[in-house]
Amino acid sequence: MLFQRAFKKPFFKNTLLSNYSKPYFFSTSQFKQLTSDDINYFSSFLAPNEIIQDSFELQAYNSDWLKKYIGNSKLALKPNSTEKISKILKYCSEQNIAVVPQGGNTGLVGGSTPVNDEVILSLKNLNKIIGFDEISGVLTCEAGCVLETLNQYLAEKSYEMPLDLGAKGSCAIGGNIATNAGGTHFVKFGPFKSYILGLEVVLPNGEILELESKILKDNTGLDLKQVFIGSEGILGVITKANIRVFPVDKYKQVLFMQCENFENVLEINKLVRGKLGRNLGAIEYQDAYAYATIQKYIQNAANPFPNNDMGKYYVLIEVCGTEALDDIVENLYTELSERKLVEDCIASESDAQFTSLWKIREEVAVAANHIGLVFKYDISLPVEKFEELCLIVRNKIGCLGYTMGYGHLGDGNMHINVGCYDLAKKKQVESILEPFVFEWLSHVNGSISAEHGVGRQKAKYLHFSKDVQAIEYMKSLKKVFDPKGIMNPYKVLPYSS
Amino acid sequence: MLFQRAFKKPFFKNTLLSNYSKPYFFSTSQFKQLTSDDINYFSSFLAPNEIIQDSFELQAYNSDWLKKYIGNSKLALKPNSTEKISKILKYCSEQNIAVVPQGGNTGLVGGSTPVNDEVILSLKNLNKIIGFDEISGVLTCEAGCVLETLNQYLAEKSYEMPLDLGAKGSCAIGGNIATNAGGTHFVKFGPFKSYILGLEVVLPNGEILELESKILKDNTGLDLKQVFIGSEGILGVITKANIRVFPVDKYKQVLFMQCENFENVLEINKLVRGKLGRNLGAIEYQDAYAYATIQKYIQNAANPFPNNDMGKYYVLIEVCGTEALDDIVENLYTELSERKLVEDCIASESDAQFTSLWKIREEVAVAANHIGLVFKYDISLPVEKFEELCLIVRNKIGCLGYTMGYGHLGDGNMHINVGCYDLAKKKQVESILEPFVFEWLSHVNGSISAEHGVGRQKAKYLHFSKDVQAIEYMKSLKKVFDPKGIMNPYKVLPYSS
Repeated sequence: MLFQRAFKKPFFKNTLLSNYSKPYFFSTSQFKQLTSDDINYFSSFLAPNEIIQDSFELQAYNSDWLKKYIGNSKLALKPNSTEKISKILKYCSEQNIAVVPQGGNTGLVGGSTPVNDEVILSLKNLNKIIGFDEISGVLTCEAGCVLETLNQYLAEKSYEMPLDLGAKGSCAIGGNIATNAGGTHFVKFGPFKSYILGLEVVLPNGEILELESKILKDNTGLDLKQVFIGSEGILGVITKANIRVFPVDKYKQVLFMQCENFENVLEINKLVRGKLGRNLGAIEYQDAYAYATIQKYIQNAANPFPNNDMGKYYVLIEVCGTEALDDIVENLYTELSERKLVEDCIASESDAQFTSLWKIREEVAVAANHIGLVFKYDISLPVEKFEELCLIVRNKIGCLGYTMGYGHLGDGNMHINVGCYDLAKKKQVESILEPFVFEWLSHVNGSISAEHGVGRQKAKYLHFSKDVQAIEYMKSLKKVFDPKGIMNPYKVLPYSS
Repeated sequence: MLFQRAFKKPFFKNTLLSNYSKPYFFSTSQFKQLTSDDINYFSSFLAPNEIIQDSFELQAYNSDWLKKYIGNSKLALKPNSTEKISKILKYCSEQNIAVVPQGGNTGLVGGSTPVNDEVILSLKNLNKIIGFDEISGVLTCEAGCVLETLNQYLAEKSYEMPLDLGAKGSCAIGGNIATNAGGTHFVKFGPFKSYILGLEVVLPNGEILELESKILKDNTGLDLKQVFIGSEGILGVITKANIRVFPVDKYKQVLFMQCENFENVLEINKLVRGKLGRNLGAIEYQDAYAYATIQKYIQNAANPFPNNDMGKYYVLIEVCGTEALDDIVENLYTELSERKLVEDCIASESDAQFTSLWKIREEVAVAANHIGLVFKYDISLPVEKFEELCLIVRNKIGCLGYTMGYGHLGDGNMHINVGCYDLAKKKQVESILEPFVFEWLSHVNGSISAEHGVGRQKAKYLHFSKDVQAIEYMKSLKKVFDPKGIMNPYKVLPYSS
């Protein structure tokens, strides 16, 4: 309740679309269609394997991994240098050719696939690790590096990235930065944007904007790099980054616990944050529906609580530190038991158990896909509302679907997934969920996108999280860097075609 | 060396001022001089005690605390509400009256005092603590709240601000945000900007830009608030903030150590960051010259090392945590001794000793002022260069002054202070130091302003830390929010008059 009271906002930021519908893009026909002259130009400085025109090969670039957002691009370019990217964009700008930048293409909101026939600019070949400075703890790499590759490189030096997420095996660091990726260790590290010390960005006109820096503290003028972090490719292309990384915590342990009601989950959240302080690595949540989905669809999943029924709730806590954690974990467990906050609790006693317990939480998203079509919402809301929203949605959906709530308790980011049993009823389910979920979030001052971004999916719903006026200033910033609007059109900002 | 190698920059970003001298402000006469009509207008909605015209009273507003930057404003306004600020700015914008926002007026770069006769907009009366949400750990307050007042308010709830600095007793939180303040706990918390979840900003045209949020994760569109954090009042006036705060660490201890050479300081820095990890609260540095200054000028200063001579170096380490630290501190001490990294080391055994040891480091800036006129540089550079720069400067200054190096070892932020013995030789000393120090920093990819900002002092030197092109885009952003250029003119961005 406190969360709401301090604000004096209307139920929605804006109930009328007309309030913000001043068109940003005038029409899709404003962009030029590719000609053989264009291809010839790109061929003049790109190697044959940097140009993809084969329609079969293009499918992977035209589609996101959930096969939800399918574009119709006739050309993907995979340059291996910043200079080539600069030449590509300069030309596209002059010729009015729309461009969609693409990293690992692991996004869930359609931000990295074309809407129509935009040229795909893949960063996959721009993937060199440039170096690691052990004195300052700064990693420098190109945008196409895969997150897990960077972590493997750092592990040899006993360092780790301040970011961890499900897609780590294929997501590109440039995309992580361009979407200000969140993930499971947000409670431990805070926002990823804090660790981006410097960037190299290619602007739509081909200018290479040099914002590189390995300096932790630098207050010299407006912080331009922050404008690009989380901009989802609508302002320019991130090509290189300097990232602050951290020594690996030597000791890590997971506690996985079952609770008999949601109030206890909230109490645990409050207790743990005060009690563990800087030893808290993660605090995650899932309801009984999510737990059951794991048990049903994930082979060999650990099942520490075979007594799961639909009234139970689960919390995962990762404790981490530079010294042995036995006392900390024991003290925590004692207090949880004495205050009767948990019905049962299991603690990892090996790396294998650590990984296995984490999987019960991490693989919910994958398990949910087995149900069939899944509506996924990545939202921020007051933690005390997590269960309430799930109850409302489950109630509204009735026998049309299966609703699971899970996510990052420590930072108020829930993923609510609704598995749709019958594909033929997809539209009916969608109309129940949207815009209802977004409206409801606006009512509790939540966010319609916690960590996945806006992309194509939520551009038209942006007004549920941001004021009209703020959206207008976003458009003004877009005009500063991309006056012709060629960069990742139809994404993030509301537009009319 | 690694620090340098990864970059391919020229010695200076730009050696020729003409490269960037496209004037931003055309002339000081572009602004209107105040008339009695203006005063009458302000009086129509401000209370008498919100309008200061008395020349004696105005002195405190026209001058910074080092009495280095003295303006000539005839009017200071101290509104107690956002709405009043909106009316003031709207009017000033319409009438073309220049405005300088002022928080605690504790800055060191002349950012919060008028250059000419700008109207001073003091935030002192906008100082309500709006509330603290214990579930999300978010503090909401107005911009004029003093940092220490906020910390006292939070201490009752066992929370603390993720920011600590010398001026805490008088600096305003709005100024801290507008300058992205750094301080002594940067190693523990990281950049202050990470904790600003939401802002209310009044734009020069009077619009109230509502960017408030208590959400930890919110990826909905371009992050406008980041543009205002660290903008030093040149884009608008921050009036309210939502700040993420943290549970107080129950255990804190200081180790203060003497080293026989600078290489050992670097080794300690490396060792401690890996070994203490998340238990590292601060790691600070001072040379023998700084240590001697404390002993000479600060009454009752602790003096754990009376054998100080000019070849010694000092390191302060704050260890913090949620559990008792005895083992951690003992392990650390054992390793420091066994590796012969320290000559001597003392650890605090009480709160009084904790404070007393911290004072040896924290009060250098105050002690240095006793020498006379002091040239103060707040710079970022590779830590391995700390000593080198001090040696060069000390050598160049010779018997004209006394050079001290001290600062934040953990984040590469050194404060180099040069006390000038003879006021008559001020110009000579200045010409030795400037632009030499800035040029040298550009050479090592350092920053001419680590945490104090650019303000009036360093606007003309900005090109030593930022590319021309980046500066041009900063100007473009300025034009988006302040097209008439009335907000804090002559600051941050280079201009010609």
